[in-house]
Amino acid sequence: MGRLTGGDPSLLRRINSAVVLRALRGAQESPTLTDLVGATGLSRPTVEGVVDGLVGAGLVTEAAGVSATRRQGRPARRFRFRAEAGHLLGIEIGAHRVSAVLSDLTGRPVGTAERPTTGDASAGERLERVRAAVSDLLRRSEVARSTLRCVGVGTPGIVSGDGSLRLCSALPGWTGLPLGERLRRSFRCPVIVENDANAAVLAERWQGAARGCEDVVMVLAGLSPGAGSLIGGRLHRGFGGAAGEIGALHLLGREDSPERLLSTTGEPLHPLDEAAVARVFRAAGSGDERARLAVERYIRRLVHDVAALVLALDPELVVIGGWAAGLDGVLVPLRKELERYCLRPPRVELSVLGEAAVSTGALRVALNHVEEQLFSVEAASA
Amino acid sequence: MGRLTGGDPSLLRRINSAVVLRALRGAQESPTLTDLVGATGLSRPTVEGVVDGLVGAGLVTEAAGVSATRRQGRPARRFRFRAEAGHLLGIEIGAHRVSAVLSDLTGRPVGTAERPTTGDASAGERLERVRAAVSDLLRRSEVARSTLRCVGVGTPGIVSGDGSLRLCSALPGWTGLPLGERLRRSFRCPVIVENDANAAVLAERWQGAARGCEDVVMVLAGLSPGAGSLIGGRLHRGFGGAAGEIGALHLLGREDSPERLLSTTGEPLHPLDEAAVARVFRAAGSGDERARLAVERYIRRLVHDVAALVLALDPELVVIGGWAAGLDGVLVPLRKELERYCLRPPRVELSVLGEAAVSTGALRVALNHVEEQLFSVEAASA
Repeated sequence: MGRLTGGDPSLLRRINSAVVLRALRGAQESPTLTDLVGATGLSRPTVEGVVDGLVGAGLVTEAAGVSATRRQGRPARRFRFRAEAGHLLGIEIGAHRVSAVLSDLTGRPVGTAERPTTGDASAGERLERVRAAVSDLLRRSEVARSTLRCVGVGTPGIVSGDGSLRLCSALPGWTGLPLGERLRRSFRCPVIVENDANAAVLAERWQGAARGCEDVVMVLAGLSPGAGSLIGGRLHRGFGGAAGEIGALHLLGREDSPERLLSTTGEPLHPLDEAAVARVFRAAGSGDERARLAVERYIRRLVHDVAALVLALDPELVVIGGWAAGLDGVLVPLRKELERYCLRPPRVELSVLGEAAVSTGALRVALNHVEEQLFSVEAASA
Repeated sequence: MGRLTGGDPSLLRRINSAVVLRALRGAQESPTLTDLVGATGLSRPTVEGVVDGLVGAGLVTEAAGVSATRRQGRPARRFRFRAEAGHLLGIEIGAHRVSAVLSDLTGRPVGTAERPTTGDASAGERLERVRAAVSDLLRRSEVARSTLRCVGVGTPGIVSGDGSLRLCSALPGWTGLPLGERLRRSFRCPVIVENDANAAVLAERWQGAARGCEDVVMVLAGLSPGAGSLIGGRLHRGFGGAAGEIGALHLLGREDSPERLLSTTGEPLHPLDEAAVARVFRAAGSGDERARLAVERYIRRLVHDVAALVLALDPELVVIGGWAAGLDGVLVPLRKELERYCLRPPRVELSVLGEAAVSTGALRVALNHVEEQLFSVEAASA
C-alpha cells in the first residue's frame, strides 16, 4: 500500500474509494455504513463521502430488502456494489471462428456469441464477423454498448503493447495489423489485445484446470501450436512478446506439420480442422492402421513440443487445450512420455474450458483492467 | 524500505548499520562522520554509534592518509569499509575438474585454484579434490579459513533448497548427495549450492556477456547440456528446480548424444572432453569431410536445444558457454539458424568468462548472500 499521509487529495479519494468498493464487493450481505467503517478503518464521514460519490457514479446503490433496524427506529441503510453498472467483453479471434462472451463487472457471464469464419478470410472479413457477433450479443443480452468498460481480445500471434500484431502466421493479413486500434473504433472503452495462448492460461487459472497453480504451461494444440505460461502466477510474455511461440519447432523437421502428421493418405490433410482431426482419431480407435500411425506421429510431435517447454520452464502443471483437449487418447501417452523425458515431470491435465478458454481468458484480461481501476489501491497510488 | 518508526531497537540498529555500510562502500573517497550524516540522513549521534559498532565488528576502519582538516585544527577522522575483513569462495564441481575462486567482501578475486578429476570419480574423491583445492588456495593466498563469510558452489543437476542433489546424471554418485551438508563440515560459514548453469548466467550478467540484460538464457554445452535463465533479472529455477535441464531433449532422438554426433569413426567419441571436441573441430576446419559432417550434426543439435529454449522463453540474449564457447565456427551458424527458426530471434553471444563462468557465478551466489546480510535494508527489516 502506498503512503496515505499528506499529498494529493484526489489521490487519497481514489484510494479510499478503492478500499470501500473492495469491502462492498467482498461483503457477504449488503453492509451498512457502520459495517463499512468497521471493515475499512476509515472514518464515518470519509466513508459517507466515498459512498455518496460511488452512488453518484452509479457503481453503488442502496440495497433493497432492509433487515436490521437501528435502535433509534429508522432502519440503517444498506449498500451493494452494482455489478450490473458496467459490462465487459472477452473476444476470441481465431482461424476458424470468432466468439465473444459478455459479463457484468464481476466477470459473471450474461451471454455469448459465435460466428464461423474460413481459414483464408481476410482481416477485414474477420473484423466484420467480430462486429456482427458483438452487436448481436449486446442486442440479445439487452445491454447498451455505452455500458462496456473494457474489451479483452485473444488472438494468435505476437502482440505488441499497443495491441498490434507484430507477427502472425496463422491468420492471413494479421501480421502488422493494428488490431487494437481497428477495434477501438467500435468501442468507447479500452481494448486490450493478448496472445490467445496467454489468454487461455489466464482462463484456466481463473476457472479451469489450473486453479491454485502459480507455474503453469498451457499448450494450444492447433494449426500453429502456441503456449502461454504463468511463472509465479504472472504471465510470462518474454522479452519481445514471443514466449511460447513454439510453432517454429516444426521447422526443425519441415515434414512434421500437423497436416502431414495426421494424414492417412500421403497427401497433407486439408482442411485441417477439428472435424477432420476427430475423424482421424476415430478411425484410429476403430483399428485403422494408417490412422493409428498418424495419431502416433501426432502425439510424438505434441510430446516433443510439450517436452521442450517443460524442460525449459519446469512448470508445476501442463494444461493441454485447443483441438487436442477434445480428443480421446491424448492424455495418457503424453503423461507417459513426459515421465520418460523430463527429470521432474509436471502434472498434465486437459483444458477444462475447452473451446471457451481463449474468450474466457480475454474476458479475464478485461476484468483485470477494470479491477485495477476500481479496486486496486496500489494502482490508485502508483 | 520497511517502517522505521517504533518497534524493535535491534532491528533499527541493523537497518541503520546497513545504511551506513552502503554509504561507506559506495563512497568515492573515505568519508568523514559529517559526510556520512549527509549521505544517510541519520543523526550524528546515530552515525557515530553505528560506526563505532562496525569498527568493533572489524567491518570498518579509520582510513589512513587523512586529507582535510577541521577548522578547529584537529583533522576529521575518515572511515572506510574493510573489504578484507572477510572472504568468499566460489567453487565449481564439474565432471572433469573442480575449481575455486577466493575473493574479498566486495567480490574482488584474491586467488584461484583448480584440480582435474576424472569423469568417473566417486563423490568422495570429488569432495576430496574440493578440500585440497580450497586448502591450497587459502594457504597460497594467506587467508585464514575463519575469515570465510560464505561459500557458493556450482554443480550440474537439480539442486534442492537445502543444497542436496535431487538428480544428477552427469556425475556418478551425485544424485541424492547432501552436498551442502557434506561441505558444511569443512566450513563454519553458510554454504549455498546452485545449479552450474544457473551460476553461470549470474556470472555472465555480473561481469560477462550479459551485463545490463534482464532476460538471458545461458547454455552450457557439455556432456549433459544445461541452461540457466534470468527472467526480469531474476533466476528462473522452475517449480521443482529443473528449469533448463534440457539434456533430456536428447532422449527424444536417442542417437543424438554428443558422443555420437561428434564421432568421426562410427564409434561414440570417448572420452568426450574438450580436447577431443577441439580435435574434431580442427579436422573439420582443415577439410576432413567426416569431421565436417560431425560438426554439422553437433551444431544442428545445439541449434535445436537453443531453439527450444528461445521459443519457450523469448530471451533478449542467449549466451553460449561450456565447450562450445571455446570452439571456432559455432556462433555464425547458430545465429543464422536461430534467425530462421525463431519468430523473434535473440542476440547470441559467446560466454566472456569461459571456463571461469561457473566458479565466478558460485562466487556471485556467495556475494549475494553476504550483501543481503550486510547492506540490504530490506533483508534487515524483513
